[in-house]
Amino acid sequence: MSGNTFGKLFTVTTFGESHGAALGCIIDGCPPGLELSEADMQKDLDRRKPGTSRHTTQRREADEVRILSGVFEGKTTGTPIGLIIENTDQRSKDYSKISEQFRPAHADYTYTHKYGVRDYRGGGRSSARETAMRVAAGAVARKFLEQRLGIRIRGYLSQLGPIKAEKHDWDQVHQNPFFCPDADKVPEMEAYMDALRKEGDSIGARINVVADGVPPGLGEPIFDRLDADLAHALMSINAVKGVEIGAGFGCIDQKGTEHRDEMTPDGFLSNHAGGVLGGISSGQPIIASIALKPTSSLRLPGRSIDVHGNPVEVITTGRHDPCVGIRATPIAEAMMAIVLMDHYLRHRGQNGDVEVSTPVIGQL
Amino acid sequence: MSGNTFGKLFTVTTFGESHGAALGCIIDGCPPGLELSEADMQKDLDRRKPGTSRHTTQRREADEVRILSGVFEGKTTGTPIGLIIENTDQRSKDYSKISEQFRPAHADYTYTHKYGVRDYRGGGRSSARETAMRVAAGAVARKFLEQRLGIRIRGYLSQLGPIKAEKHDWDQVHQNPFFCPDADKVPEMEAYMDALRKEGDSIGARINVVADGVPPGLGEPIFDRLDADLAHALMSINAVKGVEIGAGFGCIDQKGTEHRDEMTPDGFLSNHAGGVLGGISSGQPIIASIALKPTSSLRLPGRSIDVHGNPVEVITTGRHDPCVGIRATPIAEAMMAIVLMDHYLRHRGQNGDVEVSTPVIGQL
Amino acid sequence: MSGNTFGKLFTVTTFGESHGAALGCIIDGCPPGLELSEADMQKDLDRRKPGTSRHTTQRREADEVRILSGVFEGKTTGTPIGLIIENTDQRSKDYSKISEQFRPAHADYTYTHKYGVRDYRGGGRSSARETAMRVAAGAVARKFLEQRLGIRIRGYLSQLGPIKAEKHDWDQVHQNPFFCPDADKVPEMEAYMDALRKEGDSIGARINVVADGVPPGLGEPIFDRLDADLAHALMSINAVKGVEIGAGFGCIDQKGTEHRDEMTPDGFLSNHAGGVLGGISSGQPIIASIALKPTSSLRLPGRSIDVHGNPVEVITTGRHDPCVGIRATPIAEAMMAIVLMDHYLRHRGQNGDVEVSTPVIGQL
Amino acid sequence: MSGNTFGKLFTVTTFGESHGAALGCIIDGCPPGLELSEADMQKDLDRRKPGTSRHTTQRREADEVRILSGVFEGKTTGTPIGLIIENTDQRSKDYSKISEQFRPAHADYTYTHKYGVRDYRGGGRSSARETAMRVAAGAVARKFLEQRLGIRIRGYLSQLGPIKAEKHDWDQVHQNPFFCPDADKVPEMEAYMDALRKEGDSIGARINVVADGVPPGLGEPIFDRLDADLAHALMSINAVKGVEIGAGFGCIDQKGTEHRDEMTPDGFLSNHAGGVLGGISSGQPIIASIALKPTSSLRLPGRSIDVHGNPVEVITTGRHDPCVGIRATPIAEAMMAIVLMDHYLRHRGQNGDVEVSTPVIGQL
Repeated sequence: MSGNTFGKLFTVTTFGESHGAALGCIIDGCPPGLELSEADMQKDLDRRKPGTSRHTTQRREADEVRILSGVFEGKTTGTPIGLIIENTDQRSKDYSKISEQFRPAHADYTYTHKYGVRDYRGGGRSSARETAMRVAAGAVARKFLEQRLGIRIRGYLSQLGPIKAEKHDWDQVHQNPFFCPDADKVPEMEAYMDALRKEGDSIGARINVVADGVPPGLGEPIFDRLDADLAHALMSINAVKGVEIGAGFGCIDQKGTEHRDEMTPDGFLSNHAGGVLGGISSGQPIIASIALKPTSSLRLPGRSIDVHGNPVEVITTGRHDPCVGIRATPIAEAMMAIVLMDHYLRHRGQNGDVEVSTPVIGQL
Repeated sequence: MSGNTFGKLFTVTTFGESHGAALGCIIDGCPPGLELSEADMQKDLDRRKPGTSRHTTQRREADEVRILSGVFEGKTTGTPIGLIIENTDQRSKDYSKISEQFRPAHADYTYTHKYGVRDYRGGGRSSARETAMRVAAGAVARKFLEQRLGIRIRGYLSQLGPIKAEKHDWDQVHQNPFFCPDADKVPEMEAYMDALRKEGDSIGARINVVADGVPPGLGEPIFDRLDADLAHALMSINAVKGVEIGAGFGCIDQKGTEHRDEMTPDGFLSNHAGGVLGGISSGQPIIASIALKPTSSLRLPGRSIDVHGNPVEVITTGRHDPCVGIRATPIAEAMMAIVLMDHYLRHRGQNGDVEVSTPVIGQL
Repeated sequence: MSGNTFGKLFTVTTFGESHGAALGCIIDGCPPGLELSEADMQKDLDRRKPGTSRHTTQRREADEVRILSGVFEGKTTGTPIGLIIENTDQRSKDYSKISEQFRPAHADYTYTHKYGVRDYRGGGRSSARETAMRVAAGAVARKFLEQRLGIRIRGYLSQLGPIKAEKHDWDQVHQNPFFCPDADKVPEMEAYMDALRKEGDSIGARINVVADGVPPGLGEPIFDRLDADLAHALMSINAVKGVEIGAGFGCIDQKGTEHRDEMTPDGFLSNHAGGVLGGISSGQPIIASIALKPTSSLRLPGRSIDVHGNPVEVITTGRHDPCVGIRATPIAEAMMAIVLMDHYLRHRGQNGDVEVSTPVIGQL
Repeated sequence: MSGNTFGKLFTVTTFGESHGAALGCIIDGCPPGLELSEADMQKDLDRRKPGTSRHTTQRREADEVRILSGVFEGKTTGTPIGLIIENTDQRSKDYSKISEQFRPAHADYTYTHKYGVRDYRGGGRSSARETAMRVAAGAVARKFLEQRLGIRIRGYLSQLGPIKAEKHDWDQVHQNPFFCPDADKVPEMEAYMDALRKEGDSIGARINVVADGVPPGLGEPIFDRLDADLAHALMSINAVKGVEIGAGFGCIDQKGTEHRDEMTPDGFLSNHAGGVLGGISSGQPIIASIALKPTSSLRLPGRSIDVHGNPVEVITTGRHDPCVGIRATPIAEAMMAIVLMDHYLRHRGQNGDVEVSTPVIGQL
């Protein structure tokens, strides 16, 4: 399929299906000398993990990641980092019904038309389960960016269905199961989710991600602009249907005098651009926003067809997130980290910072 | 910079600055046997061309494209297609002032921080002038898709500043200078633009692009999903700040029962997905929407700094589009065509359709 | 490092160090519907495995490969195939001495200068141990090529140090530990190797690889010619110092009338070209030959320096192949299979053969 | 075709047929700030140019290169460099005969089987005429490597048919039409070539290329080793059938004690490795050697078939090089320069050396 690698110099290649033996990933291009252990990744994996509140799927996955290569004596060596997460919760289940049906708004129909076959156990490769590996890989990028460059990447849920966060307090984000920065809205969100669950329906969400401390100069016009690569990365996350940078769709009815971020010797006066000008980082915070569609796995019956083209009624039982957006914050952060890391290496070199103390000898 | 190539099997690599000698492009991977002449591209180039109404920049460029290779006896040969457009309107102008200043919301500041140098004549490489080559390359993809697969790609302006198109008539799109499908809104748009021009300000816009006739199966999960590559391609267009597929940001407050596109043996009942499920085309129309920011080249003074970090006041004189969105429709169509072409080749092969009549001989 | 992926549409990305936890690989782009099990790979892995005769290293590795993804109900699904081989023979050893020294003709010195650090346990990433994964990935390509296209790829050792195979009998190749097609030379080779082992020295070798049944048309000029990609693939094998296609260096003093392979309606009359014309397969057998240098891990002392630049005398103890060429035949076959597979997909499409029985539905 | 780009960070994409309108090239990734003019390239183009002695084809091409973009005020800007060479000597000729025949050992047969069509005028895209663009692009790499890093790349013809250069004097290389470093052999070569021309036959050759001053650390194991990429680059040159690094095929009967290059604090004691250990440059000179086959365009008749599979006798008239190796030295140098440049950028970054004097401003 050849679409399972992201990045040019910092490349992340993943494998694994929802109900297969394991998920895995190869990170190629991580500079040497970075202190790295499983704990660095586990932290972010745990934030994404299902089953941590009643508002997410009750599937239980330990999501324990193991480093298989690329780290020696606690530090990266510059060689590829192999990661693996064994799937533990592969309940044996009767798939006989679903194997012949196409669930509406799922990838069942399209995978079948592409490959002539699909792994119907829990969505197979099209399941959001694969995003666990993105989070693990993102954690490596994130650590490098933070330690070497002081870049901090943070996300939050800014809207859950009709409920918008109005206040913004970073400290609140991890105080509730929604990654919501507005504590006042949390009770409302909880009530909304509880009702939704009873109903058997699902809802969309909006996630914002911000990178602080990005130096100016990252991005490779004209096609590999920083914002274009961010759009690619973020739109590749399951369920994402829209991506904005800075003012985003808000710029449609902005006038130029309003939109242009004026500059003074002390700094930019605004950030409608979202930190990217001409496809290159400006030194301002990078700001992106994404829309996630409501889960399509519903208890409420929906019309569909089977593999032979006959009409069927589909009901999805099992354990599903009624709002996939809730767990998407760490994934969006991870993808932004991967993009920034890749662009940093493209700009400044994979080994630009390596110090070698051994003398160079010539030839006699 | 290495960011000037788009695509994996159908690759488009471009060069050229706003005020350089020429723009050029190499299309690699076009299948053999496609009838192709300059006229196929000129048609789209003329739709993008400036100076065709009072609402766009008055810079005059013939934008005449020449095919330098890859076409033999009127048909493509499978070898790279070299294209060139000579720049004709390179008015000699005094750039001494602008060469030391950073225009707000332009790429001046970021190019300087990336490269340590910039071509300040009309924006150099960061100018939207380079999109002429995208349109030429897109015309090749579009012709292949139309002739071989019956795919039709069409765009239109759905919003100009505060004015939204409400009716949708494809026949109207080319009857007005805005690519607006709603004839009733055209007078309003004209008046708005005239006022804006007097004011010296600019405005944003929204463009929609639709591809009909796309077969199911195109897209390479998990990273090179069709929608992710579309997001990459569309966000790489100058001034674009947001990309939506199907329902886009509208899906945030949609419930699952509303969003999921139910299926019957006769067809899908809705298209909130925008023709992409799990990153793969579903056979429904592919629908994308983009937001373009207002031009930043304004007669109205703005605060900025110069290359030494001193405060300056910038006024941009010269010939500029007060709404870059107006000319963006053919560019967005071109980028969608390039993405679909690339994914078709990835899926079905570059030479999958080639018929060879010469017998294969063995070895004695 | 970003150099650990090979191929464009059939991509093989590997990880793993000589003495790390495991070796692994992701194969992306394998078409769906291929029957595949571990046994298909194990066969080739066992041919490469050390310790099967007294002429190779006595390190014992089970080299048992596990498929972690991409195969469902015994067939490939088109999604990435994750493979893993756990390292079992990681003897704890005292590396304190070697960790500060650079072994002559090894990658110790260059890895240190590239990364500022190296994993000194058994060569780390630079060890030929990683080629196990190439063999596993090659087995997948080989099976596809054989089943779908009738392509057969076979290699043999044509020279071991001064001893050249003179007769060519494919049936003999797997009857001796050298992959030698000339049974008469085997006793000579055995005696030579026994003497060499006593001496503590090592020797080079030549391996030839042949692909029969390749259809004409594979190869992507001008840079990704089939022969150029083969050269890349074969030269990337540890210890390889030379690559020839067809007549190779022999063509230097060939005249044109001798070298050109004349054609008749019944077939080519010779194959000096080695099956590649203008970078594209001609339908004749593809023939390549490689030179492998003698192992540099010797018991005989050699002059070198340590990490501080001081002179040292290096002696390599431990278990090493006195002729790495002996085990290289399956590796060379694997790399040729990977190249041919990649070019087949580039030419004819990843999913060109997929049959889909489900009807395409339209949109209402 | 998508095989017309070489390199990862320093990418060279070319177009153009033997008898088309023009040859062209886009160099993407050249760092900013390099002084560059047409003269820098013309020097190398003139060394490759045909018709400079009686021993090469008498086709006359001015091979005048024009820079169309990427250079501003005499220096590169970091944006893509567009180059063009107009074809001037496109004699109108009667191709009716050759258009239906396959010349033995040419790409006629394979192009037809790949694309179903071919441009038969002078070989079209498969002609060595395209190497002019490689030389132009290589000149840019060469200048950067020389000015910034003190790397010098030089080649020479070491064997012409049966005649081997025995002495090595760099100063002689440009004193004769063969690039031969042994003045004593030049008369012999001249006599040989004169006889060959009368005969109507052609002959092979060997070219060596050496890069001095390469720092240790370049190369990206395991697949993108420096030597593997060199093999790819050199084998992609028309007519090349073999590539060696360092001792090359000579290492087959070398013992380990002989082959290993011992080290002392003052330097390596030998260079059998050819400057590459484990796929990474060692700081020693990089040494490569290539074999070029004899031209297949001969006045002497050869058996072949036509497009319908019927037997024909082919005679190639027109202007051809009786030894393509003679003009190959600048091409081999160019390809080595491109590979080293690409690997330097991968290792140290495209903009690692860029100095920016403008202050970074924050955000208010």
